[in-house]
Amino acid sequence: MSYYKFSYAQLDQFCRAAFMKIGFSAKKSKIITDVLLLSDLYGIESHGMQRLVRYHKGIERGLIKVDTEPELVFSTPVSAVIDGQAGMGQLVGQMAMELALEKAQKSGIGLVSVRNSNHFGIAGYYAKMALDQGFLGFATTNSEAIMVPTFGRQAMLGSNPLAVAMPADPYPFLLDCSTTVVTRGKLEVYNKLEQPLPEGWALDKAGQPSTDAADVLFNIANKQGGGIMPLGGSAEVTGSHKGYGFGMLSEIFAAVLSLGTTSNLTNTGGVAGICHGFAAVSLDLFGDGQAIRQHLSTYLAQLRDSPLASGQERIYTHGEKEILAEKKRLEEGIPVHANTLREMLDFAAFVDLDIQAYLGELDPATGEARQSGLY
Amino acid sequence: MSYYKFSYAQLDQFCRAAFMKIGFSAKKSKIITDVLLLSDLYGIESHGMQRLVRYHKGIERGLIKVDTEPELVFSTPVSAVIDGQAGMGQLVGQMAMELALEKAQKSGIGLVSVRNSNHFGIAGYYAKMALDQGFLGFATTNSEAIMVPTFGRQAMLGSNPLAVAMPADPYPFLLDCSTTVVTRGKLEVYNKLEQPLPEGWALDKAGQPSTDAADVLFNIANKQGGGIMPLGGSAEVTGSHKGYGFGMLSEIFAAVLSLGTTSNLTNTGGVAGICHGFAAVSLDLFGDGQAIRQHLSTYLAQLRDSPLASGQERIYTHGEKEILAEKKRLEEGIPVHANTLREMLDFAAFVDLDIQAYLGELDPATGEARQSGLY
Repeated sequence: MSYYKFSYAQLDQFCRAAFMKIGFSAKKSKIITDVLLLSDLYGIESHGMQRLVRYHKGIERGLIKVDTEPELVFSTPVSAVIDGQAGMGQLVGQMAMELALEKAQKSGIGLVSVRNSNHFGIAGYYAKMALDQGFLGFATTNSEAIMVPTFGRQAMLGSNPLAVAMPADPYPFLLDCSTTVVTRGKLEVYNKLEQPLPEGWALDKAGQPSTDAADVLFNIANKQGGGIMPLGGSAEVTGSHKGYGFGMLSEIFAAVLSLGTTSNLTNTGGVAGICHGFAAVSLDLFGDGQAIRQHLSTYLAQLRDSPLASGQERIYTHGEKEILAEKKRLEEGIPVHANTLREMLDFAAFVDLDIQAYLGELDPATGEARQSGLY
Repeated sequence: MSYYKFSYAQLDQFCRAAFMKIGFSAKKSKIITDVLLLSDLYGIESHGMQRLVRYHKGIERGLIKVDTEPELVFSTPVSAVIDGQAGMGQLVGQMAMELALEKAQKSGIGLVSVRNSNHFGIAGYYAKMALDQGFLGFATTNSEAIMVPTFGRQAMLGSNPLAVAMPADPYPFLLDCSTTVVTRGKLEVYNKLEQPLPEGWALDKAGQPSTDAADVLFNIANKQGGGIMPLGGSAEVTGSHKGYGFGMLSEIFAAVLSLGTTSNLTNTGGVAGICHGFAAVSLDLFGDGQAIRQHLSTYLAQLRDSPLASGQERIYTHGEKEILAEKKRLEEGIPVHANTLREMLDFAAFVDLDIQAYLGELDPATGEARQSGLY
């Protein structure tokens, strides 16, 4: 595996310039870049720089509109519905979570359901926005259908992540995980590496277990049947119906409450129709916010310090790995896969952006970043 | 397997009389009975009549107080914290969900976090209370620790069910499932039947996979280590950290926000300390509640009608199986396991209650219900 390494500042400046070339303002390009690079800093390669080219293609295909603003459709002191007007998911998401936080500052709680948006990056980014202001944060999104319901063979739900963030010390709690066993991004990584998928991840067109990443990805993209299993696999004995149920919570909060497009109907008729849900909740709604934060911190420490299974080295609480990865990558640089770098080079050539001005001397033919060295 | 069958009316009257014998008022006995019997109607045997004797023992041990009322500790127009004062979980739960609904009627949303309660039966009962009034309902509870966090060997979280209910036609959506692969009740059923557990359910004292139900249950009860795996198993490749994360949501809503007892510390010092969380949300917070209900109904129908995996017969939406079971059991009677019937007979003798007056002619020596016949 060839990985090249760049500093956060290098990727930040390149990425902002790239989105400005596409037509976004400097302010909007910064927001989009912040979401993408938090993913790379957290070690979630599938949702970072790797997405740049896919967003560009989405804009070319007209699924993502550049010159548009989200529209407030309905509002109460504690809730709102937003129509994303087919804008960039990151911009819609940022605006919606800011609205949820505004309401939470006044009313203690803000719930915002969003329709007609696009892929918004990692859900954790938006939950973390609440965390950074001392609130409990929640974010979810549906997606193109990839989850096959228990006993089915057609993908009917998205990867439908649930992200929840809450302040604690020394680490906050930051859960961000799909309700499928894995995300589509993980399948793409196996496909790039040409490796068979682990058992228990995916289903073929007939709804039977499959380890063929390329076949499963092709079937998902062409709505041919099959997809990824819910968390808990495909049998009730391992809890398949539970992952399917938790995925439904995302569809309800994102697509149902906003009267938006459920995952089974996304990307039809030239519209992506992706839906999101956001919530911000003040800890003071439950009394002494500081004491509550301390109580969570104590429990998280007890979890980390609890006895290990034989052969294991460490128990993590949610968000801890991401914070450790962020620290390491800010110090040592962010790895970018050779294939992603190649895509970035093609993209830069296409939009006439001098990528070497940002990332140093590169060999466009091979995608080699001479000064960055192998990861 | 010997099962005896009784009508809903028979069990209802017996159960109410039993709780009145224990010392509860007629009104309170009805609430407790309603929760227990909804579980039996829904086919969730582990949380119905089977619990009667365990509650009686909890009262004898002083963990559950009969002469007590829940106390409102903190309140805002959209939220509250309740101290259950070690009362029956069903009574505390009913009061707390009613309070959440009152707030939702006025403010559109009500969140109630509860500490110092006891086992409250099925979480779905309380979510359904909101559903029955046309609201989105949410309920969760922690429990004595049974879930072992990823890479650990000590149970640190409860079974931590998440229950969510939303109105739809012809069936509502009613999700009620633990965030462990299975509940402790399922292990108890395997133990009663003296059968080995399926792979992927439980861990022994060293945190290694185990299929020995009796050993795992003994270790849980005596806090010796081991327990049940999170939804997603015990390895990251199958998503163990996700089930562990969803379990954390329950601890946060129930135990952290109420400054209550986290599952790792329940049942110590003569206090159960079980915590719950409840929410009720008006669909009108998002615009046209009727259109939203219709939108969910359409999606649920699409899920049920989506293509089947080869070899499967039906795709269910959440709550459908329970509603079908309820219909059947109201018509044909409720099956009660012979061991449970034996416990009921012992209990009746102990509190001097004429069980035959409610359930017909029984043979106390063998637990046979002559007129009811085998299930």
